[in-house]
Amino acid sequence: MSPVIRFTILENIKNIVIFVSNIKNNHFIMTKEELMRKAIELSMENVANGGGPFGAVIAKDGEIIATGTNRVTASCDPTAHAEVSAIRAAATKLGTFNLSGCEIYTSCEPCPMCLGAIYWARLERMYYGNNKTDAKNIGFDDSFIYDEIALKPADRKLPSEVLLHNEAIKAFEAWADKEDKIAY
Amino acid sequence: MSPVIRFTILENIKNIVIFVSNIKNNHFIMTKEELMRKAIELSMENVANGGGPFGAVIAKDGEIIATGTNRVTASCDPTAHAEVSAIRAAATKLGTFNLSGCEIYTSCEPCPMCLGAIYWARLERMYYGNNKTDAKNIGFDDSFIYDEIALKPADRKLPSEVLLHNEAIKAFEAWADKEDKIAY
Repeated sequence: MSPVIRFTILENIKNIVIFVSNIKNNHFIMTKEELMRKAIELSMENVANGGGPFGAVIAKDGEIIATGTNRVTASCDPTAHAEVSAIRAAATKLGTFNLSGCEIYTSCEPCPMCLGAIYWARLERMYYGNNKTDAKNIGFDDSFIYDEIALKPADRKLPSEVLLHNEAIKAFEAWADKEDKIAY
Repeated sequence: MSPVIRFTILENIKNIVIFVSNIKNNHFIMTKEELMRKAIELSMENVANGGGPFGAVIAKDGEIIATGTNRVTASCDPTAHAEVSAIRAAATKLGTFNLSGCEIYTSCEPCPMCLGAIYWARLERMYYGNNKTDAKNIGFDDSFIYDEIALKPADRKLPSEVLLHNEAIKAFEAWADKEDKIAY
């Protein structure tokens, strides 16, 4: 066998081994760059489809669980950011509110609402493409919300007031006394 | 006419005037205490119905637009806090992502995710019953999330990484160039 033929056969065997090693449970394992590229692709498509320029992917072990795009204006839902949408879809798909073991790939650094959702969902890692400054430069400025959340209620621009604390606490007491509650 | 009868008639007229003054567009106007009491009632009912001890009401001009309860475990949705649920329902009902002119009554001080949603929805005022410490005392501690959000990405416990910025920015450029976009 000539050296050239032997080299070609070995190269092919190597490629097959790489391909097979990327397959797990009949699903192709995507790299983090491929998963981010998918989130970016969603953000591009969403601009063409009347949504904001944001896309997100929830993945587990390199496999896509669910995706989301920003549908705030299209769905009349101020909470329908790409990350929240992807988290809700992934939780529905997996049948659990706890997405530990999953990672999020988002085309832009999340706002405080989405970051809060990422923590509540127990996502283990976050990858993002654009940053807050990029978002601000095209009119999506969430620095105001970051600033407000860090303040005490009385110091925020959002007016707030405590009402009927002595009545509200009764539901917490009922929760504390409940024996069959599902804590989370 | 005896003084007693005259007094009774005048009292009845006064009550009718108060009742009529509370009616606007055929809807009874609720006081802020009544609206908060409704949020608390929802939080109590939710404990009995397998949910967390949280309820919220969105109101406009003293009239209930929509309500929400915490259905995280019941709906397998980590974002289904009472406030987010109420905001989504109110936005659907009014057909807009912009709830300016509306107020939120929540049985407990909101977590960062819900507070973010309150700002994005442009709610004008917030009333709450229980506070963060009350919530912590029954096992719902969101102080970790408040602390994390205030940090730079690299300083958070949540591992994060920037990926493919040069590709992600293209969706933002497409948005900036789009002439018929709906900004918000």
